[in-house]
Amino acid sequence: MKYLAKIEVSLKPGHTDPEGNTTQHLLRELGYSVDAVNVSKAYSIQLEADGLREAKVKAEEMAKRLLANPTKDNYTISVEMQK
Amino acid sequence: MKYLAKIEVSLKPGHTDPEGNTTQHLLRELGYSVDAVNVSKAYSIQLEADGLREAKVKAEEMAKRLLANPTKDNYTISVEMQK
Repeated sequence: MKYLAKIEVSLKPGHTDPEGNTTQHLLRELGYSVDAVNVSKAYSIQLEADGLREAKVKAEEMAKRLLANPTKDNYTISVEMQK
Repeated sequence: MKYLAKIEVSLKPGHTDPEGNTTQHLLRELGYSVDAVNVSKAYSIQLEADGLREAKVKAEEMAKRLLANPTKDNYTISVEMQK
Protein backbone atom coordinates (compact mmCIF):
# COMPACT_ATOMS: atom_id res chain seq x y z
CA MET A 1 0.00 0.00 0.00
CA LYS A 2 1.10 3.54 -0.65
CA TYR A 3 1.57 6.12 2.07
CA LEU A 4 2.51 9.76 2.21
CA ALA A 5 4.94 10.64 4.98
CA LYS A 6 5.62 14.23 5.84
CA ILE A 7 8.82 14.80 7.78
CA GLU A 8 9.56 18.32 8.94
CA VAL A 9 13.11 18.99 10.05
CA SER A 10 13.85 22.14 12.06
CA LEU A 11 16.78 23.44 14.06
CA LYS A 12 16.79 22.74 17.79
CA PRO A 13 16.28 25.83 19.94
CA GLY A 14 19.53 27.67 20.53
CA HIS A 15 21.02 26.92 17.13
CA THR A 16 21.58 29.89 14.87
CA ASP A 17 19.26 30.01 11.86
CA PRO A 18 21.01 32.31 9.36
CA GLU A 19 18.29 31.95 6.73
CA GLY A 20 15.60 32.75 9.28
CA ASN A 21 17.55 35.79 10.50
CA THR A 22 18.02 37.09 6.96
CA THR A 23 14.32 36.59 6.21
CA GLN A 24 13.43 38.46 9.39
CA HIS A 25 15.63 41.41 8.40
CA LEU A 26 14.16 41.54 4.91
CA LEU A 27 10.59 41.41 6.21
CA ARG A 28 11.37 44.24 8.64
CA GLU A 29 12.85 46.29 5.81
CA LEU A 30 9.56 45.76 3.99
CA GLY A 31 7.82 47.28 7.00
CA TYR A 32 6.46 44.24 8.86
CA SER A 33 6.61 43.87 12.66
CA VAL A 34 8.32 40.50 12.82
CA ASP A 35 9.81 39.21 16.08
CA ALA A 36 11.40 36.02 14.79
CA VAL A 37 11.56 33.75 11.76
CA ASN A 38 12.54 30.09 11.76
CA VAL A 39 13.02 28.15 8.57
CA SER A 40 12.55 24.42 8.43
CA LYS A 41 12.53 21.84 5.69
CA ALA A 42 9.55 19.64 4.91
CA TYR A 43 10.01 16.36 3.05
CA SER A 44 6.91 14.82 1.44
CA ILE A 45 7.75 11.20 0.81
CA GLN A 46 5.62 8.72 -1.12
CA LEU A 47 6.54 5.29 0.16
CA GLU A 48 5.29 1.74 0.06
CA ALA A 49 4.61 -0.25 3.21
CA ASP A 50 2.40 -3.09 4.42
CA GLY A 51 0.44 -0.93 6.82
CA LEU A 52 0.26 2.41 8.57
CA ARG A 53 2.38 1.21 11.45
CA GLU A 54 5.17 -0.01 9.19
CA ALA A 55 5.02 3.23 7.21
CA LYS A 56 5.48 5.21 10.42
CA VAL A 57 8.43 3.06 11.49
CA LYS A 58 10.04 3.54 8.08
CA ALA A 59 9.51 7.30 8.12
CA GLU A 60 11.08 7.47 11.60
CA GLU A 61 14.09 5.50 10.34
CA MET A 62 14.45 7.77 7.29
CA ALA A 63 14.49 10.83 9.53
CA LYS A 64 17.09 9.31 11.84
CA ARG A 65 19.33 7.80 9.17
CA LEU A 66 19.29 10.51 6.52
CA LEU A 67 17.16 13.59 6.95
CA ALA A 68 17.80 14.92 10.45
CA ASN A 69 21.10 15.56 12.21
CA PRO A 70 20.57 14.49 15.83
CA THR A 71 23.07 17.08 17.08
CA LYS A 72 21.17 20.07 15.80
CA ASP A 73 17.79 19.04 14.36
CA ASN A 74 14.34 18.28 15.70
CA TYR A 75 11.82 16.55 13.48
CA THR A 76 8.12 15.81 13.37
CA ILE A 77 6.50 13.05 11.35
CA SER A 78 2.98 12.54 10.08
CA VAL A 79 1.91 9.64 7.88
CA GLU A 80 -1.33 9.07 6.02
CA MET A 81 -2.60 6.63 3.41
CA GLN A 82 -2.20 7.95 -0.07
CA LYS A 83 -5.41 8.98 -1.78
CA MET B 1 -1.21 41.01 19.62
CA LYS B 2 1.28 38.34 18.62
CA TYR B 3 0.59 35.72 16.00
CA LEU B 4 2.46 32.78 14.58
CA ALA B 5 2.21 32.44 10.81
CA LYS B 6 3.39 29.31 9.10
CA ILE B 7 4.04 29.71 5.39
CA GLU B 8 5.01 26.61 3.46
CA VAL B 9 6.52 27.18 0.03
CA SER B 10 6.74 24.26 -2.40
CA LEU B 11 7.50 23.87 -6.09
CA LYS B 12 4.55 23.85 -8.47
CA PRO B 13 3.93 20.48 -10.11
CA GLY B 14 6.08 19.97 -13.19
CA HIS B 15 9.09 21.83 -11.82
CA THR B 16 12.20 19.77 -11.23
CA ASP B 17 13.07 19.30 -7.57
CA PRO B 18 16.78 18.34 -7.54
CA GLU B 19 16.94 18.09 -3.75
CA GLY B 20 13.86 15.86 -3.70
CA ASN B 21 15.31 13.66 -6.43
CA THR B 22 18.62 13.30 -4.62
CA THR B 23 16.83 12.46 -1.37
CA GLN B 24 14.76 9.84 -3.20
CA HIS B 25 17.91 8.21 -4.65
CA LEU B 26 19.61 8.14 -1.26
CA LEU B 27 16.57 6.63 0.45
CA ARG B 28 16.39 3.95 -2.24
CA GLU B 29 20.07 3.17 -1.77
CA LEU B 30 19.28 2.69 1.93
CA GLY B 31 16.68 0.10 0.86
CA TYR B 32 13.39 1.98 1.13
CA SER B 33 10.61 1.70 -1.47
CA VAL B 34 10.17 5.38 -2.20
CA ASP B 35 8.18 6.54 -5.23
CA ALA B 36 8.76 10.28 -4.95
CA VAL B 37 10.16 12.94 -2.63
CA ASN B 38 9.29 16.62 -2.67
CA VAL B 39 11.10 19.14 -0.54
CA SER B 40 9.47 22.35 0.56
CA LYS B 41 10.43 25.16 2.89
CA ALA B 42 8.42 26.13 5.94
CA TYR B 43 8.73 29.60 7.45
CA SER B 44 7.50 30.06 11.03
CA ILE B 45 7.04 33.78 11.49
CA GLN B 46 6.22 35.52 14.76
CA LEU B 47 4.50 38.75 13.84
CA GLU B 48 2.47 41.48 15.44
CA ALA B 49 -0.97 42.44 14.19
CA ASP B 50 -4.22 43.94 15.47
CA GLY B 51 -6.22 40.78 14.89
CA LEU B 52 -6.27 37.40 13.23
CA ARG B 53 -7.61 38.80 9.99
CA GLU B 54 -4.85 41.41 9.72
CA ALA B 55 -2.24 38.77 10.59
CA LYS B 56 -3.52 36.58 7.74
CA VAL B 57 -3.43 39.49 5.29
CA LYS B 58 0.14 40.30 6.33
CA ALA B 59 1.26 36.69 6.00
CA GLU B 60 -0.25 36.52 2.54
CA GLU B 61 1.61 39.71 1.56
CA MET B 62 4.90 38.34 2.93
CA ALA B 63 4.51 35.19 0.87
CA LYS B 64 3.74 37.16 -2.29
CA ARG B 65 6.35 39.88 -1.84
CA LEU B 66 9.30 37.88 -0.52
CA LEU B 67 8.97 34.19 0.16
CA ALA B 68 7.35 32.62 -2.89
CA ASN B 69 8.23 33.02 -6.54
CA PRO B 70 4.91 33.13 -8.43
CA THR B 71 6.48 31.54 -11.51
CA LYS B 72 7.47 28.33 -9.81
CA ASP B 73 6.14 28.20 -6.24
CA ASN B 74 2.91 27.32 -4.52
CA TYR B 75 2.36 28.28 -0.91
CA THR B 76 0.02 27.52 1.96
CA ILE B 77 -0.54 29.75 4.98
CA SER B 78 -1.85 29.05 8.45
CA VAL B 79 -2.01 31.64 11.22
CA GLU B 80 -2.76 31.22 14.91
CA MET B 81 -2.55 33.38 18.01
CA GLN B 82 0.70 32.96 19.83
CA LYS B 83 0.52 31.08 23.11
